[in-house]
Amino acid sequence: MDTRTGLPVVGMVGGGQLARMTHQAAISLGQSLRILAIEPDDGAALVAPDVRIGHHTDLDALRAFADGCDVVTFDHEHVPLEHVKALVADGYTVAPGPGPLRYVQDKRAMRERLGALGVPVPRWAPTIDAAAFGWPVVVKAVRGGYDGRGVWFVDRDDPLPEVEFIVEERVPLRRELAVLVARSPFGQVAVYPVVETVQLGGICVEVLAPAPDLDPARAVEAQRLAIGLADELGVIGLLAVELFETGAGLLVNELAMRPHNSGHWTIEGARTSQFEQHLRAVLDYPLGDTGPTAPAVVMANVLGGEPGGMSIDERLHHLFASDPGVKVHFYGKQVRPGRKIGHVTALGDDMAAVRERARRAAAWLREGGR
Amino acid sequence: MDTRTGLPVVGMVGGGQLARMTHQAAISLGQSLRILAIEPDDGAALVAPDVRIGHHTDLDALRAFADGCDVVTFDHEHVPLEHVKALVADGYTVAPGPGPLRYVQDKRAMRERLGALGVPVPRWAPTIDAAAFGWPVVVKAVRGGYDGRGVWFVDRDDPLPEVEFIVEERVPLRRELAVLVARSPFGQVAVYPVVETVQLGGICVEVLAPAPDLDPARAVEAQRLAIGLADELGVIGLLAVELFETGAGLLVNELAMRPHNSGHWTIEGARTSQFEQHLRAVLDYPLGDTGPTAPAVVMANVLGGEPGGMSIDERLHHLFASDPGVKVHFYGKQVRPGRKIGHVTALGDDMAAVRERARRAAAWLREGGR
Repeated sequence: MDTRTGLPVVGMVGGGQLARMTHQAAISLGQSLRILAIEPDDGAALVAPDVRIGHHTDLDALRAFADGCDVVTFDHEHVPLEHVKALVADGYTVAPGPGPLRYVQDKRAMRERLGALGVPVPRWAPTIDAAAFGWPVVVKAVRGGYDGRGVWFVDRDDPLPEVEFIVEERVPLRRELAVLVARSPFGQVAVYPVVETVQLGGICVEVLAPAPDLDPARAVEAQRLAIGLADELGVIGLLAVELFETGAGLLVNELAMRPHNSGHWTIEGARTSQFEQHLRAVLDYPLGDTGPTAPAVVMANVLGGEPGGMSIDERLHHLFASDPGVKVHFYGKQVRPGRKIGHVTALGDDMAAVRERARRAAAWLREGGR
Repeated sequence: MDTRTGLPVVGMVGGGQLARMTHQAAISLGQSLRILAIEPDDGAALVAPDVRIGHHTDLDALRAFADGCDVVTFDHEHVPLEHVKALVADGYTVAPGPGPLRYVQDKRAMRERLGALGVPVPRWAPTIDAAAFGWPVVVKAVRGGYDGRGVWFVDRDDPLPEVEFIVEERVPLRRELAVLVARSPFGQVAVYPVVETVQLGGICVEVLAPAPDLDPARAVEAQRLAIGLADELGVIGLLAVELFETGAGLLVNELAMRPHNSGHWTIEGARTSQFEQHLRAVLDYPLGDTGPTAPAVVMANVLGGEPGGMSIDERLHHLFASDPGVKVHFYGKQVRPGRKIGHVTALGDDMAAVRERARRAAAWLREGGR
């Protein structure tokens, strides 16, 4: 507890945009997020005062960080599981705990567990030789992948990556969906509307909320699936479930146990943002209203372009002139080509029109290109 | 400009809740608000990293603070006008500038100016002897009043305060209204819907947006009046115009040139919050959409109660259980009876129902009492 305010202290390991936006939500709840950042100019470290510099693989740094926190949570899934267990053994409250975290750190363990639970997943195999579902296949690193990294499409004669991997069928999918659910220690769950995520080169570029033209029964099925998984795995905080929609139904692609790119639309588009919801869940506060604030909401990621051309500040000026309603979120990051440096959100009544606004805004903010 | 991000640095003098909430908005724009706080545990200083400790009456502290800011703005109106002029003479960009600021620092000058502009104001007089409008009268300190301080209702035989004051008629009013408008150096203006403000003992306790049952022609009149004043006075940033609605029409009661309590509802209730709008205005960005996000929005202030009873954290827990849709904003302040320690916002379709929710939430969070 922060003795100055009588309110709890949440510590988040990792200083990226998720911690940055969680800090914004923490301020409303009377808190100030404590952040473990690697560098003083990490996106979250630029905007919060209670920043400790240390690496998430350094157990001593993690212990010093956890001391005084009511609960420790995560901006990413790269803290070694044995360190998470050590913090729990020390008596610190960690959310989510090592039990569920295992499944976002190890894709093989996740697929085995999902299979045991009877959850539909793409056909997969632990080795390339056991993959009896035709070429090309999808090869995924067991550990550490994100944003398209750690995923390869491999044909018969292609070389294999030199990491531990699993093999999946290449699913003939209609589109990708995602469901976000929060779960508290008390066991309360709150699920957001199902969204469509649009990927380009393995990176999420747009999220449409709610997923257009989704069969209502299938939306309920997706939400039930996410709630069931959060419960079965014992998740505390947010669980994002990435889904493939195929002609035959839904398949679970990936899980994340933290605020997720597919939930950024909730900042303006839902009555409770995913960042506030994550804090409420890990603190065992009752969860907030997940209802939408507009019939159509589109989030588009702003990716870094090639350097040169108009400055980001000039671009922002022109964007605001052309669309007074679009909302911008920058992450305080140095621009690198293809890196997520921010996102934009547009809201309205008509999905096609809202999507066009979000796309234009994101394209315009991308430096050095269209 | 912040060389790490290529985005501007706004400095706000004063470390209260207005700076705290402006920092939240700055983060989305890729910035981190620089704050001049008196104490390290001022509400805004608890949540932002770029905090300078110094007093707003200390010109050296102000100069050191302004150095490196793209623009300096204010959380309150207590910076001595000669200091503001000195910063401008030094070449710093200050918004609003000393020209308009004069009118929120000196109530006599403000009333004279409003009179010269033909703006309707309550009858007033510079001395008690010249006040030919019957007892009781309203006596107002020329400088430094806020939240009911610096205002006295004085009857014929009552003692007069020992400060410089002006005298006003006690207006037979139906209710109080407020209009918030932003103006940029470019001259663009953006006005929010007219709201009703409910006062208790000189302190704003509730804001209803939009003002219920307000004649549309009168709403337009109020908005035009605010736009005209922002323009005439050369305001850069926000201008809040507090109005009396009487049987004979509108009268201007007070002005403020900063984010204002009557605009806190915009965080969830408008497409652009007043805090983002203030930043956009002082930075000369085009202004954001002021449209509402729901048909009825009510903001209620949370006032400190007598100490004792349930902790603020326990109260928050119970509030969230009883109303998952209410939004809470705490200011990181030590609780003192009657002090604004936070606010709540409820949104919905029916004003009476929304108001009841906001009232209950604020009453419940008030410590030590109902």
